[in-house]
Amino acid sequence: MPLWKIHHPVDAYTPDDKKQFATAITSIYEAVPIPRFYVVVLFEEVSAENFYVGGDSHDRFVRINIDQMARTLPGPVLREWWVHHLDEVIKPWVGDRGYDWEFTITEPPFDLWSLQGQVPPPFESHAEKRWIAENKASPYTQAEKLPVQLALAPGTVGGTW
Amino acid sequence: MPLWKIHHPVDAYTPDDKKQFATAITSIYEAVPIPRFYVVVLFEEVSAENFYVGGDSHDRFVRINIDQMARTLPGPVLREWWVHHLDEVIKPWVGDRGYDWEFTITEPPFDLWSLQGQVPPPFESHAEKRWIAENKASPYTQAEKLPVQLALAPGTVGGTW
Amino acid sequence: MPLWKIHHPVDAYTPDDKKQFATAITSIYEAVPIPRFYVVVLFEEVSAENFYVGGDSHDRFVRINIDQMARTLPGPVLREWWVHHLDEVIKPWVGDRGYDWEFTITEPPFDLWSLQGQVPPPFESHAEKRWIAENKASPYTQAEKLPVQLALAPGTVGGTW
Repeated sequence: MPLWKIHHPVDAYTPDDKKQFATAITSIYEAVPIPRFYVVVLFEEVSAENFYVGGDSHDRFVRINIDQMARTLPGPVLREWWVHHLDEVIKPWVGDRGYDWEFTITEPPFDLWSLQGQVPPPFESHAEKRWIAENKASPYTQAEKLPVQLALAPGTVGGTW
Repeated sequence: MPLWKIHHPVDAYTPDDKKQFATAITSIYEAVPIPRFYVVVLFEEVSAENFYVGGDSHDRFVRINIDQMARTLPGPVLREWWVHHLDEVIKPWVGDRGYDWEFTITEPPFDLWSLQGQVPPPFESHAEKRWIAENKASPYTQAEKLPVQLALAPGTVGGTW
Repeated sequence: MPLWKIHHPVDAYTPDDKKQFATAITSIYEAVPIPRFYVVVLFEEVSAENFYVGGDSHDRFVRINIDQMARTLPGPVLREWWVHHLDEVIKPWVGDRGYDWEFTITEPPFDLWSLQGQVPPPFESHAEKRWIAENKASPYTQAEKLPVQLALAPGTVGGTW
């Protein structure tokens, strides 16, 4: 996760196009930062006979389904910005090529996710930082689940937790 | 959005069948009303070798996945009615043809949706009504985001907001 | 529901493999128990040219999307256990064969689900037990919607409902 599924017209993209499109998508998440290998992009060619928009067959439409883990986009400002940001990044492969396009983002729960047999470490944890650096999944310790920026010095935290 | 993905047996539908099926689905939403072009229907042929129900290969099953924006179906009465209504509409292409069938509806968040590079306008807004009439996406103003039925006259609304 | 969609490399599985994989998945849910015929498994072959992980084409990746009805996995202990349990069951078809793999589970709402034109009965109800035994959907009565384990004897339940 994230997973992008891109339904596109027949012959819309060459293998090179797909590679570049997937790389651009991956860069969005790398900048967060999250591990590059979290990003999976699947292209699915759909012929006009199987693609309907408003009840009519459509041979120039790109429909993208994005699954992103819940809790990564807190608050309305960040969510609106994210949607516009994605549109900017994907523009060269959709609008700029004369395609109509649409995307929706769903937010599967973070805790029902498994990668290489492991539950991925918490955001901003030591383990996640290591996964980013190594760009692959590997076992991690309980201690590595702690956040990199940990404010636990005596007196800095109130007594309510 | 809505997006219907229809997994069906090989040669279950002719191109004409698909066109009529997609048109029937579109009419459901047009009656709400929402813009016709919001409705995307994708057909995906799945061979018996790739289709399992209860652990057994199945060559007569239609499995439909529906994504509808959240908040469109408030309350249990409306939700139950909607499910039965969809079943009535799709009947000619599933049960009436001797297919087994199943559908589920997921509810992606309204605010993580983009169409032609724009966040679609609020339900029942002036902009949405214009999109319905024109049957295509176009830029809209801040003022057009207001609801068509706006009760804001002095005295009609309490002081708590 | 549940629905498993398994995106896999070209020629990753023979028809026999798929049958066994689907049967193993079905057994997970049968043990809950829920009706076997609730479990739908779809295999989707994705060529390396259409499959990108971390921006690079990948020809050894299995990406599984699972839709499970909401409310079946209450609480963090059960959810974590479930994820590990699924990983154990699928291991022979992913890691043991040298594939990288990932799965995510989404939780569509229970009340927006229809099977053979019927809303499936409540969990642990008499109707569900009958569906399990008969392994097919059939009409059920209002009375059959009651839970099998019903504590309604006078005095055993308080007056607040």
